Parts: sequence; structure tokens; C-alpha cells
Amino acid sequence: MSIQQFSSSLLENAVNEFAKLPGIGRKTSLRLVLHLLKQSEHEVEVFGNAFIQLRKEIIYCKECHNISDTEVCRICSNPGRDHETVCVVENIKDVMSIENTQQFRGVYHVLGGIISPMDGIGPSDLEIESLILRVKTGNVKEIILALSTTMEGDTTNFFIFRKLAPFNIKTTTIARGIAIGDELEYADEVTLGRSILNRVEFTNSFK
Amino acid sequence: MSIQQFSSSLLENAVNEFAKLPGIGRKTSLRLVLHLLKQSEHEVEVFGNAFIQLRKEIIYCKECHNISDTEVCRICSNPGRDHETVCVVENIKDVMSIENTQQFRGVYHVLGGIISPMDGIGPSDLEIESLILRVKTGNVKEIILALSTTMEGDTTNFFIFRKLAPFNIKTTTIARGIAIGDELEYADEVTLGRSILNRVEFTNSFK
Repeated sequence: MSIQQFSSSLLENAVNEFAKLPGIGRKTSLRLVLHLLKQSEHEVEVFGNAFIQLRKEIIYCKECHNISDTEVCRICSNPGRDHETVCVVENIKDVMSIENTQQFRGVYHVLGGIISPMDGIGPSDLEIESLILRVKTGNVKEIILALSTTMEGDTTNFFIFRKLAPFNIKTTTIARGIAIGDELEYADEVTLGRSILNRVEFTNSFK
Repeated sequence: MSIQQFSSSLLENAVNEFAKLPGIGRKTSLRLVLHLLKQSEHEVEVFGNAFIQLRKEIIYCKECHNISDTEVCRICSNPGRDHETVCVVENIKDVMSIENTQQFRGVYHVLGGIISPMDGIGPSDLEIESLILRVKTGNVKEIILALSTTMEGDTTNFFIFRKLAPFNIKTTTIARGIAIGDELEYADEVTLGRSILNRVEFTNSFK
């Protein structure tokens, strides 16, 4: 079924709007719009306004640039967190993932992306300057780089690492290795190689 | 990654709204919301309002109940169409599919669903009464039932067939059989069986 001829331009508009979202094709879009049409007028208003309001009233924490309801987010304003250890992540999803592990008591710095010349994203589009400022003016002892292991992630890591060099600050990256429960046989060579190079002392691994 | 702790209730709201749509989980939802956050305020307003406006201003054609911009849709108001042949379909997507074949010159009647007791949809929730009224008052010569071949579709077909019985009107259903290009070997038995029962004369099939 190719969807070319719509019986209504309002319908066509709505379908086009959904189809702009990543991973949503025109067929899925039509299905979603028809679903919305079955909802009450009030429900659809709540639906549409949720995004408009979010976009309009969104606050980014002025410390870590995570999405927040307040000027300083819950994590940054928590005195129980270790403000000397800053974990640098690409986006808010990564903050959630790390928070779910309950293994990190420090604070975050959300870059809002990674350096990707292909997508036209340079260092100035990211919260890198503010990270340097945080290091310069704050009491940061360690920066943990927790970016993805893609070429873009490595580029960003290296860029930040160079920027931090003058400050004589401890800079680490999260450990890469074989996932717990995975068999060596099926691991890719790069990961396995790195897990051997970065081996840890046996007792240490149970800390 | 389980997404439980959101750093903002506005964000959580927006994620919940997307996740209400069929086939959209919470991870996908978060991805879509973060995508919207990268758009301009104006773009997100256009996005949200497209659905609100559609729901508010939607018009269903008073003849065929298809979604329309005008009181009577483009198809029903077209004098070149055969108004004596009415094709009954489940929803607007089916109208589009049939229109795309360019094989049908009649008009439609959109039921808005099919009888499905499991989902609490009875005959009174569908545009069946209006179909009967159309037959009663109009100049309809043939009703083509083009519903899906599920149990619900068959139930609806039968219900409409019974309702139409007093009017002594020609009632047909679309042909079911092996799709063009498909091999018999891989066809399911019911379809193959029906395609043999409903065989057509050889010359006829090239009409």
C-alpha cells in the first residue's frame, strides 16, 4: 500500500508530522494517527500539549545540563553525592542507565551529543566549554569519560582529554571488556583484546 | 536499561504520552521525545498542534464516513464515479489501498471498524445503520463487502448480509485466492481451497 492520496489535508499533515520522527515510516504514522482519532478530543489535546509544553518549559540543569524541573537537578543538588567525581556522558539516557546500576555516587556532565563531523556536530555544539569551566572553577578531582566506543566517541574522548591536560586532573574511562555472563568464544576480537590489556588484579575485581 | 527514574516530570509526561500509542514502547518513546527536544520550539508546536487540530476539526463524509475536508468527500462528490456500487470497508486505510489499484470506480462506505466482542465493539459502534439507510433511500444496486478474512470480518460480513436481505440487493465479497506471483506450494490450505472453489472461467480472468 503506497499512501499518496489522502482524503483530507488535515490528515495528511498529521501523518507527515509523525513520519518526520526517526524510525517512523508513513504506514506506521497513518496507523498512529488513526489511533489518535479514536481517542477523545481531550486526550489528543493532552497528547499534543505534552510535547509543546516540554519543549517550551524545558530546563537544563545549569551544573550538569541534564534535563531537569529545577535550575539545579536532583542529582547535582544532592549533598550526599560526591561532587569531586564527574562522569561525562553523551545524553540523558546514559545518565539513566548509570543511575540504574546504583554503582555511581558522583555527579554527571551531559554533553548533549558527541563530536560527529558527518552530522555537522562540532565541539562548540556540545557542553565541552562548560565542562572545562567546571574543572577550572570547581573542586573536581576526577573526570570519568563514559562515551560510546565509536569513532565519534573516541574523537570526543580525545578532544576532552586534550582540553583537560593543563589542569592536571585524573581522567579515566569506563572499563571495556567481556560482559558478565558472556562467553569468550563469542566476544569480538577488539573487546577481548582490550579486556586482556586492561586486566585487573583478581582481588580488585571483587571490590 | 529500565527507564524508571526521570530527571524531570515534564519529560516523564511526554514519554508516557508517546508510550500510550500502539507499538511504541518506553525506550522508543524516550528516543522520540529526545529527538523532539532537539527541534525548534516552533517545530514542536507545529508537531503537537497537527494532531490537536486534526482531532478537533476532523470531518467525516456524511455519505461514506471517510475522513474528509468537506462535508461530502472527493469520491462521493465526484459525478464520474458509479454511485450504484458501494464497497464496504473497515477503515480509511482500506479506501486508500483500493483507490491505489485504480480498478474501482464505485463509491465506498467506511464502517469505522469491525464487530469484535473481545474489544467491546458491537454493530451499533459501526456505521452499519447508515449503510442500511443508504440502501433504503438511495439508488444502490450492488454492495461489495471488502472486510478482512478474520473471524471478526466474517461476523461483520454475515451481520451486514442479514441486514441487507430484505432489500433484494446484489451483495458480493472480494475474491480470495492465491496472490499473483505466489507459488501454490507455499499457499495456505484455506486460501488454496477457496481459490479452487471460486475458480473463474479462463477468459473471464483476463477481463
